[in-house]
Order: sequence, then structure tokens, then C-alpha cells
Amino acid sequence: MAIVTFGEILLRLTPPNFARIQHTSSFDAHFGGAEANVAAALSSWNQSVRLVSKVPTNPLGNSAVRFFQSCGVNTRSIKKGGERLGIYFYEQGAGLRPSVVEYDRKDSAFTDPAENEFDWYEILLGASWFHWTGITAALSPSVLSQLRKALKAAQNHGVKVICDLNYRSKLWSKEEARETMTDLMQYVNVLVSNEHDTQICLGVEVEQSPNTEEYYRSLAKTLKDRFKFDAVALSVRESEIVQIPDVIHRRALLLDSRDCSNGYFSHKHTYRPIEDIGGGDAFTAGLIYGLLHEESSQDALEFAVAAAALKQTVPGDVSLASIEEIRALAVNGKGAKVVR
Amino acid sequence: MAIVTFGEILLRLTPPNFARIQHTSSFDAHFGGAEANVAAALSSWNQSVRLVSKVPTNPLGNSAVRFFQSCGVNTRSIKKGGERLGIYFYEQGAGLRPSVVEYDRKDSAFTDPAENEFDWYEILLGASWFHWTGITAALSPSVLSQLRKALKAAQNHGVKVICDLNYRSKLWSKEEARETMTDLMQYVNVLVSNEHDTQICLGVEVEQSPNTEEYYRSLAKTLKDRFKFDAVALSVRESEIVQIPDVIHRRALLLDSRDCSNGYFSHKHTYRPIEDIGGGDAFTAGLIYGLLHEESSQDALEFAVAAAALKQTVPGDVSLASIEEIRALAVNGKGAKVVR
Amino acid sequence: MAIVTFGEILLRLTPPNFARIQHTSSFDAHFGGAEANVAAALSSWNQSVRLVSKVPTNPLGNSAVRFFQSCGVNTRSIKKGGERLGIYFYEQGAGLRPSVVEYDRKDSAFTDPAENEFDWYEILLGASWFHWTGITAALSPSVLSQLRKALKAAQNHGVKVICDLNYRSKLWSKEEARETMTDLMQYVNVLVSNEHDTQICLGVEVEQSPNTEEYYRSLAKTLKDRFKFDAVALSVRESEIVQIPDVIHRRALLLDSRDCSNGYFSHKHTYRPIEDIGGGDAFTAGLIYGLLHEESSQDALEFAVAAAALKQTVPGDVSLASIEEIRALAVNGKGAKVVR
Amino acid sequence: MAIVTFGEILLRLTPPNFARIQHTSSFDAHFGGAEANVAAALSSWNQSVRLVSKVPTNPLGNSAVRFFQSCGVNTRSIKKGGERLGIYFYEQGAGLRPSVVEYDRKDSAFTDPAENEFDWYEILLGASWFHWTGITAALSPSVLSQLRKALKAAQNHGVKVICDLNYRSKLWSKEEARETMTDLMQYVNVLVSNEHDTQICLGVEVEQSPNTEEYYRSLAKTLKDRFKFDAVALSVRESEIVQIPDVIHRRALLLDSRDCSNGYFSHKHTYRPIEDIGGGDAFTAGLIYGLLHEESSQDALEFAVAAAALKQTVPGDVSLASIEEIRALAVNGKGAKVVR
Amino acid sequence: MAIVTFGEILLRLTPPNFARIQHTSSFDAHFGGAEANVAAALSSWNQSVRLVSKVPTNPLGNSAVRFFQSCGVNTRSIKKGGERLGIYFYEQGAGLRPSVVEYDRKDSAFTDPAENEFDWYEILLGASWFHWTGITAALSPSVLSQLRKALKAAQNHGVKVICDLNYRSKLWSKEEARETMTDLMQYVNVLVSNEHDTQICLGVEVEQSPNTEEYYRSLAKTLKDRFKFDAVALSVRESEIVQIPDVIHRRALLLDSRDCSNGYFSHKHTYRPIEDIGGGDAFTAGLIYGLLHEESSQDALEFAVAAAALKQTVPGDVSLASIEEIRALAVNGKGAKVVR
Amino acid sequence: MAIVTFGEILLRLTPPNFARIQHTSSFDAHFGGAEANVAAALSSWNQSVRLVSKVPTNPLGNSAVRFFQSCGVNTRSIKKGGERLGIYFYEQGAGLRPSVVEYDRKDSAFTDPAENEFDWYEILLGASWFHWTGITAALSPSVLSQLRKALKAAQNHGVKVICDLNYRSKLWSKEEARETMTDLMQYVNVLVSNEHDTQICLGVEVEQSPNTEEYYRSLAKTLKDRFKFDAVALSVRESEIVQIPDVIHRRALLLDSRDCSNGYFSHKHTYRPIEDIGGGDAFTAGLIYGLLHEESSQDALEFAVAAAALKQTVPGDVSLASIEEIRALAVNGKGAKVVR
Repeated sequence: MAIVTFGEILLRLTPPNFARIQHTSSFDAHFGGAEANVAAALSSWNQSVRLVSKVPTNPLGNSAVRFFQSCGVNTRSIKKGGERLGIYFYEQGAGLRPSVVEYDRKDSAFTDPAENEFDWYEILLGASWFHWTGITAALSPSVLSQLRKALKAAQNHGVKVICDLNYRSKLWSKEEARETMTDLMQYVNVLVSNEHDTQICLGVEVEQSPNTEEYYRSLAKTLKDRFKFDAVALSVRESEIVQIPDVIHRRALLLDSRDCSNGYFSHKHTYRPIEDIGGGDAFTAGLIYGLLHEESSQDALEFAVAAAALKQTVPGDVSLASIEEIRALAVNGKGAKVVR
Repeated sequence: MAIVTFGEILLRLTPPNFARIQHTSSFDAHFGGAEANVAAALSSWNQSVRLVSKVPTNPLGNSAVRFFQSCGVNTRSIKKGGERLGIYFYEQGAGLRPSVVEYDRKDSAFTDPAENEFDWYEILLGASWFHWTGITAALSPSVLSQLRKALKAAQNHGVKVICDLNYRSKLWSKEEARETMTDLMQYVNVLVSNEHDTQICLGVEVEQSPNTEEYYRSLAKTLKDRFKFDAVALSVRESEIVQIPDVIHRRALLLDSRDCSNGYFSHKHTYRPIEDIGGGDAFTAGLIYGLLHEESSQDALEFAVAAAALKQTVPGDVSLASIEEIRALAVNGKGAKVVR
Repeated sequence: MAIVTFGEILLRLTPPNFARIQHTSSFDAHFGGAEANVAAALSSWNQSVRLVSKVPTNPLGNSAVRFFQSCGVNTRSIKKGGERLGIYFYEQGAGLRPSVVEYDRKDSAFTDPAENEFDWYEILLGASWFHWTGITAALSPSVLSQLRKALKAAQNHGVKVICDLNYRSKLWSKEEARETMTDLMQYVNVLVSNEHDTQICLGVEVEQSPNTEEYYRSLAKTLKDRFKFDAVALSVRESEIVQIPDVIHRRALLLDSRDCSNGYFSHKHTYRPIEDIGGGDAFTAGLIYGLLHEESSQDALEFAVAAAALKQTVPGDVSLASIEEIRALAVNGKGAKVVR
Repeated sequence: MAIVTFGEILLRLTPPNFARIQHTSSFDAHFGGAEANVAAALSSWNQSVRLVSKVPTNPLGNSAVRFFQSCGVNTRSIKKGGERLGIYFYEQGAGLRPSVVEYDRKDSAFTDPAENEFDWYEILLGASWFHWTGITAALSPSVLSQLRKALKAAQNHGVKVICDLNYRSKLWSKEEARETMTDLMQYVNVLVSNEHDTQICLGVEVEQSPNTEEYYRSLAKTLKDRFKFDAVALSVRESEIVQIPDVIHRRALLLDSRDCSNGYFSHKHTYRPIEDIGGGDAFTAGLIYGLLHEESSQDALEFAVAAAALKQTVPGDVSLASIEEIRALAVNGKGAKVVR
Repeated sequence: MAIVTFGEILLRLTPPNFARIQHTSSFDAHFGGAEANVAAALSSWNQSVRLVSKVPTNPLGNSAVRFFQSCGVNTRSIKKGGERLGIYFYEQGAGLRPSVVEYDRKDSAFTDPAENEFDWYEILLGASWFHWTGITAALSPSVLSQLRKALKAAQNHGVKVICDLNYRSKLWSKEEARETMTDLMQYVNVLVSNEHDTQICLGVEVEQSPNTEEYYRSLAKTLKDRFKFDAVALSVRESEIVQIPDVIHRRALLLDSRDCSNGYFSHKHTYRPIEDIGGGDAFTAGLIYGLLHEESSQDALEFAVAAAALKQTVPGDVSLASIEEIRALAVNGKGAKVVR
Repeated sequence: MAIVTFGEILLRLTPPNFARIQHTSSFDAHFGGAEANVAAALSSWNQSVRLVSKVPTNPLGNSAVRFFQSCGVNTRSIKKGGERLGIYFYEQGAGLRPSVVEYDRKDSAFTDPAENEFDWYEILLGASWFHWTGITAALSPSVLSQLRKALKAAQNHGVKVICDLNYRSKLWSKEEARETMTDLMQYVNVLVSNEHDTQICLGVEVEQSPNTEEYYRSLAKTLKDRFKFDAVALSVRESEIVQIPDVIHRRALLLDSRDCSNGYFSHKHTYRPIEDIGGGDAFTAGLIYGLLHEESSQDALEFAVAAAALKQTVPGDVSLASIEEIRALAVNGKGAKVVR
């Protein structure tokens, strides 16, 4: 059974060695995109994954396809055509300097699909999951129209739908996002998000005091009930007493109808990441993998959180951690030492 | 007296070490653009140069301005605003593999100037030369409209106008080019071009057998007479008996009303370039410098050809050769040995 | 219909920037191997290609598979297991300094397949061509045994067999090579080679004076008749009057039963390569493609020679030239200029 | 109104990737110098800045000038001549290994100005501030003589003088420093320093127990009173309970006659820097900018400390942080998250 | 008096910039090996060191020898011959991702010495110390046989023997290790190890509760008594209350018959290493140096621990810290600030 | 028997990838120096070589020593002390752009030896050859004084002296060079030079028409007779009919008293070098090696010329070609093909 994901592939250009865009004399090149990152992670874990996208008929388009092929992604549903490949410039932060993302993605090939660009019934044939994020919904009316077709086809095919709200303020306003996303939730089985995006995109708020376990449990329950999700996964913001510069804490909550019905919190992973990008996508990929293959929902969540933490140890948008590496971290809650 | 040039600045991204775009994992970054290259060369030779352009208010825009400031260009007429910086991907050819230029310049900040974006009377105050190329004319109607304003202001101010036809098939059709460029020639004092572009843009052909000195002399004369230019400079295509791979030959003809009235052919420079880009722009810059500072038109032409040849010995769009280096090559017709 | 190729994948390590192995502080990494290179080229031209090989279950093995997946090769017949990935160190020559190849490939995973490692009847199902080279035959008795199984299966399935003799003195003696290869020719339909390897591996010599067209024609005819090949392709050694350092000449002869029955010589391509490696493999890949898709045997040969010449313009073992680029060179016999 | 700064430009050579000088095979190149760094920072914030210096007439001298031009510095007062550009080798520390600075700056072009090398009355025309540090005073008698001329001219022109004591033990003895610097304080309006340098260069000590706020307040008051400064800014050494390796704390005190008359302590910034160099210079530049443009002295100080902290997040001697970035950090006391 | 060390030299290949082996396009090259690292460190401290080893007669073998020559090691006892140089791939960990060591060292030149490859009596002439580790014992029967010869010769010559148990699970089983190592301890004067390896290789355990000072004292005493060592040095595992990601703590215990007869614990060094490899070897080298040159056993131990900590601040297997740098850290227990 | 060479070691800094010094953001680092290059080449060919020099007591001095140790040079006579290591910036030419050498070597450690810095009698004990070049003579009076001592000691010890005139116009005037060098010729047994330097330094001219074999023969004879040299080796300038850009021709003449008494011309090697530097030094090293080990003077000369040609195929000042590689080129007069 295949996993289908629908979204844009971007060329990411990053100055090496913490240089700023204003001063760099070269850029490292990576390919990514929220949905494409999920595809790459899942296929690197031997899942059958179809990436539905569109890239231009030029060397950059070819290179993008080559990259996802190297990960084992089925790229037959990546159409060729249109004007250009979307680009984003990513400047790696350091110390107190935040990372910078500068989009140059307007009028990309992906944003202008033909009315019949994608044959969703064929694409979803034999699929078990369909994955999308709020970015796809935000990109253009014609992409949104394709997304609606896909979601209806998924519903008809009995394909499970998983969505990460992924609000991007540079792509649409809060009002636009809320109107569209609230409506699309009818097709979604599993929601992946956080308190910030659920507030903006779905208008959901709860009364408990913020940053407590009760708060996250209540938020997840409210979401699950209101939108009739099968499951809700939320990342949890930690507030620490001893602040260590550059160190982040990652933890998540899963609420589903099986064995996490009261909400299950994962281990907290504490680490210095070497990249900001792609952690959330690795989490979603890990959750899909976990729900398909791990023994319990709790194990699925631990797999997802560990996958996200390990993603942030490699440069580039895409997770390179193996199932064994992720499980090792998921089980003992900390990284292994060098083995020799 | 200042030299004013009007055109777009592009970010150039080049895979290092002859890699192909499809396989590279990084890009070297340079800034260029036909008119900007002329500005950079002339200011590196201590000329007062104003570059009139527009870049976005983002790190790439800042970086572009920084680069031309480092060359000494007066960047006060580079406006900030608009959507994005135009990009081109340049893949360096090797052996029998041609270089590839892949444009991603649509909807750039430069192509959409406001009606009153540039105050041409102020900009041209105290200027002796105004330089532009056919690329600027081709980019958009609003840029063309600014160009017309500039040309009229130049005419009124008594500023000499020098134009390189620079036909780019990816920007406009032959018909569009011919209609526009033929009309704009009324403002031009000095034309820089070659047989290919004059045929396309100005519809000028001559009867002599191609590739002979007579042919080029006749072409130059016809152009000069028809459009009432003060001077015409043409690059000359050489056909060699012994073909040496990767070696090019550079030579040019200047016809003016002073001492080149019968047309003067420069030395022929034979060399292996390390880059294809920017040779023509260095030629134009060299010609402006030469006409201003060299003793004779012949010396001016030799300076221009030597500047072009030396440009092709450095990576990037911009000439880094000094006046002394160019004169040394212009005089003895060949490169010096290592001095120590 | 698929093309199947059977051979070892090697990690190639090359000091950058013409450094010598003795002095380098880093190595550029590429993956290659004669048969794998053919697979990569053909799949980059949208052919369905199955690479039959074996790599170790470690990050290098994974990386090798990733690379050929990026080219679009079907890697499902690449088995995992065994000790190590074969390595070769490649030092790029310069001036009068020859390139150096230092093998470290002994006891690699590929050289020790299990008796039933490959299910050749399944692998060759739906295949039109089977490709191998003398390197595979030389690596170990167990690999040779697999090769014999594959060849018999191909014969039974009616799959065409193409072989490049590819003699490697570091792998076996001339006597061993001749005994084995002469025997294996019974399964071969198309032979790709040169005068040096046919003399060593097949003991074929002809009387004509060397380096003449007659000599090559006669050699091809003798080979075709003696071993009942459908076709023979030979590279042709050129002797030039004006020797230009670093410049090579590439030309080939094809003799087949269709329209090249008297032997057809390709254009001669003259160029400075930027790499020595992989030209022959690109030739073979081009020949297979050409025989499948070009209109005549002559066009097929021109495609093959142009593919080989273009391969030598990129770093790494694998051709990155597109069908369009190869055809452009095959047709006009010379490289295009930069297009913009 | 322009800001004038007078000091040496050095080429800095740094082994990449934490390599030691003894083992590196390459060096990253940057240009810097205490006063030049102040110039670069201020002009990147759109201040009109004149850098008064001297570099040799060779490619390194040109390159140094190009760099400061790229920052927007007015380089017309950088004279050309003399022997060589001063160099320093900077080895980045790691873990418990300290950074190493190895000077090779003797007999540089800057250290031997002609008697009338600089026309200080012209240079200071239209200037509001003159900046120098103790390094300039220490370099050579002839530089010191120029400095005295400059200070007297500044006094006559009513140009405010700001000085950072910047004691360098490798340039002069404590005795020499104290004699010279104490004397030069008569020209200084604003002093920037720390407890270590004020003790050495000005012989000022106070009785309070070290490392307390009272200590720093008392030290600043004593300095301000004794030398009749308008303002004194001191960096404050923090002693922490939990020591986190590689993390530094930055805080400062400003005492002036306006609204900081009782001494104001800035926020403390806690972070892992990626470079040791240039923090103090960014502080001084930030202070000048802050005193010119921020609403209160307190805001000026916060701007200066934030500028210093952000400088240490980029490789190279020079701050690349924008006014907006610095203000964001100055206001909320911590770095932003990635914005997208 | 010379120090002799006997062990294999390996080529280490490491992806740069935290890339994973699966994704890298290049490898940084270093040479190392437990015994060779000790040799390099000691000779960089001006000790006369003979490295006894064997490398192939190829560019990699030459390059390995060149590297140790650059450190000042006497390489006359490095024999040339055999098949290949052993390789290991080292992937640098980050965050929660552990480092990976992937060996490719089988059938290396070193593992197959001739019966009379090394003339131990000549080699040990004039030597004061002989150093080896458990890796050498594990590599092959013929290497073990050479090791036994060396140990007997050392015993006869009165050369002190120092051994680091260095258990490597990929080279031999616990049972093999215990049988061989227990037997070889009869030749050893000074043991360097930790609780993990002494348990595996020598079967020594003690009753005290783990991770207490008593535990380590008792373990050292038991070892010293049972095997009649002159001295035992153990690294000490620290358990910290506040865990800071990426930070390690290094401390050791020395028990000898002179002034550390009750066991002396070193300072604890707390730091973020930039590499995992080679710390233990630098400790051993530091201990040998310390025992030879420092005034007391305590000073020797502090020198050893500081050497180990500083090793982990440079990329590569080999320590580059000078005696002065190590002593500075050994004395004040913390790293210096940048000196200028 | 050892070969002794006396000269300065310089740090060479080169922009990578043909960048110009004005634009580079990094420099590749090499160590060289005419005499040191000879030492490195000879010891890489297993000769016992002592390099007599002086470097500062800093990381650069250590690094210089490390480099020559890696080549196998005996560095015990390299003294530590003085101010700085001499530097030269080397910009690689391309096309018609010449290479640039920018010296920054004044007041280096080497130029100021103490009166008794070197104990020449001990240094020359057991030596068979002493090598120096005109650079050493030109550097400073105190170096010249040491050189005279060395030459007298060599004369007394019966050590053969070989000198390359190596005139450097940036170090001394023609008059100074001629006065000093003419005088020092009394100590020289073998002269290595060319027509340009012999004219300047020794004032020798001959009547034959330039660039003929007769001219070079006559020049060598005149030199040999006038200064009573045992042998004279001259490089020969070739004038070619077909000029191929970037290609050089290398050929030399040897005149000695044994079997080259009428002068022997070497093969002419024609090639594209990848570096200009160090060819002459490799020639001298090759000549010393050849005279010691090759069967005839003719073979010695061929070895020298081939060594020089191969040097120019590697980056850096020092030859890395092996004896086998040089002999292969010396014998067949052209480079080998890739061997595998």
C-alpha cells in the first residue's frame, strides 16, 4: 500500500559555515518542501511513496527529481512544465542571531497546474494514506482546487488523510487560512500541529493555563471532538529553568481513539540541533510510519519524536536517519555513543 | 564627468568545477548584468560611474549593491523595492559540451519600475556618457518607457549615448526587437555590436562575402551612414585553419569620424578563456574608457579588445584587470610572463 | 522492454584540483563501475534499466544504491550483503603526468555472490538486452559462474547480449582472459571493443597496416565472422600530424548486418576532456540506445561516439548528457555555443 | 555629518573548520582592524563614515579598499603607498583550546605615514565624531604624531572624540601605554573600555569589591571625573554559578551626563559566539550609532551591547547585523526564532 | 632514549560538515591508528619515537608515511609491502545522533607481516618504552606473533612496556580478547584502561558501588596487585546532575608505586569536544611524556588528562597541542583566553 | 653522503580556482623556496638531504618545518628564531593574463642570522653536494656572509657546489647581482642557469644568433671556460611555428667534462603546465640526482628535464613525481596513459 503526498519541491540555497546571505560567495544546494520531505523520509524507511508535484522542464527540475529518486521516492507523478522552480534562501542562525528564510517561490511551476494536471483517481489507487500540509492549500487557487479534488478522491477511495496545518504568514493571511483550513478539516483523519497553528487556522483555544500538560490534553481533545479526527498529534512547548543557549527541547502529545485516548506524552529530547529546518516534517513522517508499523500508538509517537530530533542533526531538509537509529533513540531516550 | 548606465543586476549561480546543474551540491554566487558589468569595469578604472537599477529590499538586494560598491560604483541610483532579484544559472561548458544559461528573471524588481522611479534629469546631471543595451529595452514595457525617458533626457543634456544591441532570443522575438531597436537608434551616438545582432535588430545586411575584412568594413559603414552614428564598433568573427579546441580568437573593428574613418582592425588575440560570460561588456567598457582616455581611436579599440580578452581570464561577470594590465596586452599583443 | 546489466559498483575517490594522492587532504566521492555506468546513462535517457549487483549492508552500500536510484536505475536487483564495497583511487593526470588508478577492490561484496544470489530467469523477464563486460568475468569464479548462468538465461529468453571486452591487466592474466572470453563469445550478439583488447582477449589479428581504415574494417569483419556477432563496434585510434597537448580524438567503426555491412566510420571528435574515466561505457550505452531508437545504424554509431565525447566533459564516472545534447553533437559534429 | 575613524587595516588569515595553523592547507581571508571595523559597522547602518588609513599599492591593498567600499565606507582618505599590508593569523579556539592571534604587522604601510600624509582639517570638515583606539597610538611614533594632529584638529573643529583604550601587550609596554594614553585623554569626550585596560592605560583603580555593580559604577564615575569625559562605557565581567562551556555573557555600563548619570547597566546577553573577534568594535560602533539615533542613553547602550553580541554570530571581523536585527535583540533581550 | 610503538596505520575518511556517509560528496582524509597516534603526539613533543608498522607500496602507503614524518616520527621501521592500507569511515555525530565508525581494514598490509618482517632486537636497541594496545593483539595471528616477539625482546632489553587494552568488539570476541590479553599482561609494566575494558579483557571486577572514587581506587589496586603492574591509569566515568548536551567530562586516576600509591585523581575537565576520536591515545601519550618529564606522578597524570582534552579540540586523529599549551591547561584546569 | 642546501622557506598564499588576489575569499597555503624545493625533491627520491634555514618560533615556522619533514628532509639545521616567516602571494595566470608574484618577505627570520647561527663545518660533514641559488646571495648582507662561510667550508671539505643564478629583480639591482655573483663563481662546480640570468649576473654574451643550438653551445662553453666549471646546464628557449595558447616547451643543454663535452640537448617536452612555479628547482634537483645515479650525463640531463616538466603538473612549489615516473617520461619523451 502506497503513501501519497502532494506539495511543492523547492530549491533551498544556504550560505555555508554560518555566513550571511549578504556576504556569502557560494550557496549549498538542497531540495525540500514540507510534503516532499515527508515523502523522502518515508521512502528511506522502505515505504512505497508517491510524490505528486510539478517542476519545470529544465536542469533544476531534473535535479529536484533526481534527488527524490535517490531517496527511493516514486516520482512518476511529478509533472514537468511551467515556468520555474520555487527557491528559498535559508540563512543559518547562530548565537542570538535567528535563522532567516527568504522565499522566492512566486509563479513557480507547481502553483499553476492545469485543470486536469493530476489524475487523482489513478494516483490514489492502492494508496493507504494521503498527506498534505497547509502550505499546499495556501499556494494558489488552482493548487487548492487540485487539493480539494485529491481530498474528495481520498475520501471516496477510503484513503486516510493526514494534515499538518503548517501556517505560513508569508503565503496568506490568518483570515484566509482559517476560512480554508477549517473547511478542509472535514476530509482529515489525523491532524498534526501545535498550539500556535491550531489557534490561527482553526480558531481553537482552551482555558487551561498555557504550557501545562492539562492545557495540551485539553487542546487535543477539543480539536479531536470538534473536527472528528481519528487522532491528533501536537508538539509541546517546554519551559525550562536552566536555559542553555542553542539547546532545544522536543516533546509531543498524541491523542487517538485506540490506546492514547487520554493523551500520551512522549519523552522529552534535549539537544543542540545543527539545523532548524525539517523537524516537523520528520515528525509527521515518523508518525505515519509509527502508526503503520509500531506496536502501539505510544511507540508510534516515540518514533515520530525521535525521527524529528534526529532530522535536526543533519544538514538539509530531509531526514537521513534509519529505522534502527530512530528506534534506538525512541527506546532509550538518548543518543548512543560511537560504536566501534 | 560621470558615466551613467541603466540595466538589471542579476544573481548568477554557477556549479563549481565544471559540474552540471543536475549534479551539483553547491553554487558559486556572482552578480552581473550587461550594463552593471560595464559600470563595474569602468569604476575599477577610476571612472565616476552611476548605475541606475532596482533591487528588492532583501539580503540578496543588499548583497548585489554591496558587490557594485566594492567595485567603486556609485550606487545611489539603485532603488530598493519590488518582488525579487532576477537570477540566472550558468553552467560552465567543457570540451564539446556548450555552456548553459538558464534564466529565472521574470517579475524581478527591475522589470517593474514606478512611473517616476527614476529622476532622469537629476541622474544625468554632470554625465558625459549614457550606456544601455538591448536587454534593458527587452525586459518590460515599463522599463522600456524609462529607457525612452532616459534617452530623451540624455539627448537634451548633450550626453553621448552608447548602445550594445545585445539581442536575447529568450526575452523577445526578432520582430519585436527590430521594431523597438530600430526606433531607438535615433538617440544613439556609438553602436557596439556584431554581424548577427545588427542583422536581427536593425535589418542591416551587406553584399560582401562573409568573414572578410571588406565585409565588416562595409557593414560598419552602412550602419554608420543609415543611423548617423558617430562611431560603430563590431566584433569580427575569425575562421582559422588549424582549429585548437577551447581556443578562441578575438578581434574587432572600429569605424568613427576621427581617425578610424576607413575602419581600423584591432590585433587578434588568441587564447583559452576560463569563462564565456562578460567579454562583450568588458569590450564596451574598454571602448568608453579608450575613447575618453587613449590618444587615438586605434588605441581605444586596442584597449577595448584587450579588456575583453582579459575579462575572460577571471571567474565571474566582471572584469578585474587594471588599466596597466590591459595596456600591456593592448601594446604587445600578448600576455606577459610571471614577474618576480 | 528492460535493459539488464550485471557488474560491480565501486566507490571512486579522487583528490580535487589535480592534487596527487600523496598530498591531498580530501577526496571527492563518486560511484561507478563499467556496467553500472552503462545503466546510469541509459536510464538517464529514460530507458528501463535493471542493475544486477551486490553491495554491503552499510552506509557506503546504501549510498551507492542511492546514487544509481537518482539516475533512475531500477535497483531492486542490487543485493545487500558481504564484506565491503570495492574502492578505487583515481588521480587525475595533468600535462605529461598520466592519470593513476589504484584499485582496492579485493574481497568486495560483489565478488562473493551466493550460488543462488540472483534469480536470472526472473531478472531477465521482459528484458530486451543484457550487458556485461570482461571485468565481471575476471572478478572471481563465483561471479563468473553467475555470469554464465545469466548468459544462458539470456540465450533462452531471446535477450540480446552486448559485451565490452574491457581487459584489465590487474585483474587477470592475458592467458586467463583469452581462455574465458573466447569461450563466452558464443553468447554475445554485439561486441564493443578496440584493437588492443581484441588481440589480448580473442587473439584476433589482421594483416593490414595498423591505424588505417582498412585495418579496422578488416579487424571488425574477422571478428564478426569468427564469432558470428550480429554487430561489432570498434574504437579507432587516430594519429595526428599536429599534436596538441591534452587533446584527444575519438572515432569509431560499426559493422553490422543491416546498413553498416561494409563498416561505417563515425565523425571524428577532437576535444580536451576533463576526465579520462567512463568514455567507453558511455559509448556502449550510446550504442545500445542508438540501436534501439535511432533511425539507422549510422545514426546509432554517431550517437554512441557523441555520448562518449560528452561523458568526458563532466567529473565522475557517469554521463549526464541528455539525448538532445548528444544528438546535437552527433549531427553537427561540434559543440554548440552558449545559448541565451 | 560624517564620522571619521583613523586606524590600520589588516588582512586576517584564518584556518577553516577549527584547523590549527600548523595543519591547515588553506586560510580564509578577511579584512579588519579595530577602527576599520567601527567604520564598516556604522556605514552598514547608513552612516556617512570616512576611514583614514594607508595601504600598499598592490593587490592586497586594493582588496582591502574594495572590502570597505562594499560596506559603504568612504575610502577617499585611504592613502596608497608604503611597503606591505599588515597581517594577522587567527586560529579559532575550540573546547578548552584558546584562540590564537599571531601578528605579522611590523613595518606595514600604515605605520609609516609621511609628515603631511593626511590633511586633517579637510578630513574632519563636516564631521561630527572622530574615533580612534589605543592600537593606533601604539603602532609607531609617526602614526602617533598623526593622531595628535587629528585630535587637535578635532578639538578645534568641535568634533566629538570617542576612544577605546584597546591595550595590546604585543605592541607596547604598560608603561609606554600609560604615559601616552593618559596624556591623550585630554582630547577624549567618550571613553569605551573595561576594568583591565583602564587599570593599565590610565592607572585608575577603585576600592569596591570586584565584579559588583558598585565596583563598575565607581570605576566609571572615577574615570569620568578625573578625565572630564562626557560619558564612559564599560564592559562588565560576569561571574556565573553554572558554567556552561563555550557560553559567554555580555553586559555593559554607561555613565553619561544626561539620563545615565547614575550609571545604567544593560541587559545581560548569554550565548555561544561563533567568533571571538570584533565584539568590542561592534560595541563602540553601536554606541556611536545609539548616541546619535536612539531616544535615550539607555537605548543607546542596549543597542551597543546587542550589536556586539550579534557581531559574534558571524565569521570575520565586521558586523553584518542590520539596525532592525539589533533593535529586535536590544528590545526583547533574546534572539528571534526563524521567521517564515 | 627512544619510544617504540607497534600498530597499524589507517586511512580515515570523514564526510565534512556533519554530513552523513550516505549523502556526502567528499571525504576529508586523515591518518591514524591507536599506536600511531601515540607516536605522533610524543614526537610532536620532541621525543624520539619509532613507529613500527607496515603499509602498502602505493600512493596511500606513501602518504601515510609522509604524514607521520611531518610529525617528526622516525618512520624507518615502517615496512612497505602487502595488499592494501586499512581504511575506516568516520561519520561525525551531532546532537542526539551518535558518531559512526565503519571499518574496512581486513587483509591490510599490516595484518600479514612476514615471519622475519621486523628485527625486534635492532628496533628496541636504545629504547626506553614500548607501547602497544589491544588492537594490535586482535588483528591477526601473525601480528600477534610479532607482538609476542616484541614483548619478549622488550623484557630482555629492560624496555618498559605500556599497554592500553583498547577492546574492539568488531575485531574479536570477549573470550578471545580475555584469553590473549590476560596472558600478555605478564610483559606489561604500565596499564592504561577503563572499567569497561578491564572487565572484558582481564575479567577484573570489584565490589564497591560503581562510579565512586572508592570503586576506581579499588579497581586500580586489584589490577596492580593481580598483574604486578608498576602503575595503572584508569579513566573515570563522571555522572553529572545538570546534563548539558554535547558536553563531556574527562578525569582519570593514576596508581603507581611512587607518589600515587593511594591513587590520585586528576582535575575534571568539562568541555564540548569537536571530535570523538583519539582522546584515549593522547592520554596514553601524555602519560608516557609525563612519567618521563614531569616532576611527580600527579603532574604526569594532569599532563595526560589535559593532553586528551586538547586532542578533542582538533579535527583528525592526532594531537596538535604543544607542551606549553598542555601544561597551561594542566595547571589552571581551564582553557586560556585569546592572547593578543 | 648527504646533500646540503641553504636558503629561505616562504609561505606561499594562492587564491584558488584562478581567482585574483583582489577578489579571493581564501588562499591555498604551500611552503616553498628555491633551495627548499630542491631539498624536498631530492629527499622524496630517497636522498639524504639537509636543509639549512631559519624560521620563526611560531605556528607558521612549525608548519614550514612539518612540511619539509613530511618530504623526508632532515630539518635539524633549520634554526628557530627571528621575527617572521617570509610570505609570497602567487596569483595563477590564465589565458592572456600573466601570473603575479607579490613578495612580502622583508625582515624575515632567515634574513637575519646570527654571526654563528650555522656551524658550517659540522653541517657539511659527510656531505657530497652543496646547493644554493642567487636568491640566498641577494637576501641580506648577513645571509651573504653565511653563504661565503658555507662555500669556503665546502671547498675545504671537498664538497661539490652547484648554483642556480636565479636572478630576482625585486631583490637586488643588476649591478649588485653581477658584482656578487661573479665573485662567488670561484666556489662553484656546476652552474645551472639560462641565457637571461647569465647575461645579467655574469655578463657573459656570445655572438651566435640567438635561439640556435650553436648559440647555446657557445654560451655554455664560454661560461665553463671562463669560470672553470665542471659542468654547465642551460635551459633552452624554443621558438615554435604553431603557437598553441598555454602550451610551453621545455628543453635543456648540458655541457660537462665527461660525456657531454660537446654539449648535449635533451628531448623537448611540450605540455600545458598547471603551475608556473618550481620548474627550475625541480630541474636542478633532477640534475643532482641524475649526476649521482644515472648512467650517463645524457641520462642525467633527461632526468632533470623530465623532473621539471612533471613538477609543473602539480599545485604547489614542490615536485611529487617519483623516480619511476620521471624515468618513464625521460625515456619515451611523453607521458603515459592511465594504467589500470
